[in-house]
Amino acid sequence: MSAQDVATAFVNHYYTTRDSNPAALASLYQPGSTLTFEGTMVQGSDQISAKFQQIGQVKHNMKGMDVQPGQNNNCLIIFVTGSVQIGGDNPLHFCHFFQLVSTGPGAYYVHNEIFRLNYGL
Amino acid sequence: MSAQDVATAFVNHYYTTRDSNPAALASLYQPGSTLTFEGTMVQGSDQISAKFQQIGQVKHNMKGMDVQPGQNNNCLIIFVTGSVQIGGDNPLHFCHFFQLVSTGPGAYYVHNEIFRLNYGL
Repeated sequence: MSAQDVATAFVNHYYTTRDSNPAALASLYQPGSTLTFEGTMVQGSDQISAKFQQIGQVKHNMKGMDVQPGQNNNCLIIFVTGSVQIGGDNPLHFCHFFQLVSTGPGAYYVHNEIFRLNYGL
Repeated sequence: MSAQDVATAFVNHYYTTRDSNPAALASLYQPGSTLTFEGTMVQGSDQISAKFQQIGQVKHNMKGMDVQPGQNNNCLIIFVTGSVQIGGDNPLHFCHFFQLVSTGPGAYYVHNEIFRLNYGL
């Protein structure tokens, strides 16, 4: 699979699962995984799952996706923009960064993740 | 300097220079540097400088900045949101990702950079 194919498969799985059953995302993370959500940083699968739980119901609409190779061949950078509804509120712009790190052929975990809403001009 | 201090110094330098004299940013990049700007990918200092030249006059207003350690101790991830005026037009939301890679004590270059505008809901 090309980097683009890996990224497409990842984001499709991520947003479908995030919007329907976020607890099922836990297996994407390892103890060294870091999530920064709206400026709050948490680490490790348990804390990340707890953060998703705390945020509650979300519905993402992805618009753009950019992919770059990371600092070495094990790392894949994915950058997504789009809109999101949180708790049934009106949609807001979001941007979302992931760094996937390979654990073996075709296998990756999320090492870095950063999410920000973009509102107010 | 902490990662946060490095990131703050970097983004202050970057946006001040980007808005006033983008040609002076060339020294931040190396042949392996990759910039994706609004979905268009270019590589290396010369191509990145040419892309900045092509975009023309910009004015950034930074709002949020998140910093994470990268996949190893040489890598620093910076994620910025804010608004930008391009060619004197009305401000639009932007999000901007950088991965800095260390070349020695206190010295970094931009290995990865991704920029997206966020508009339309």
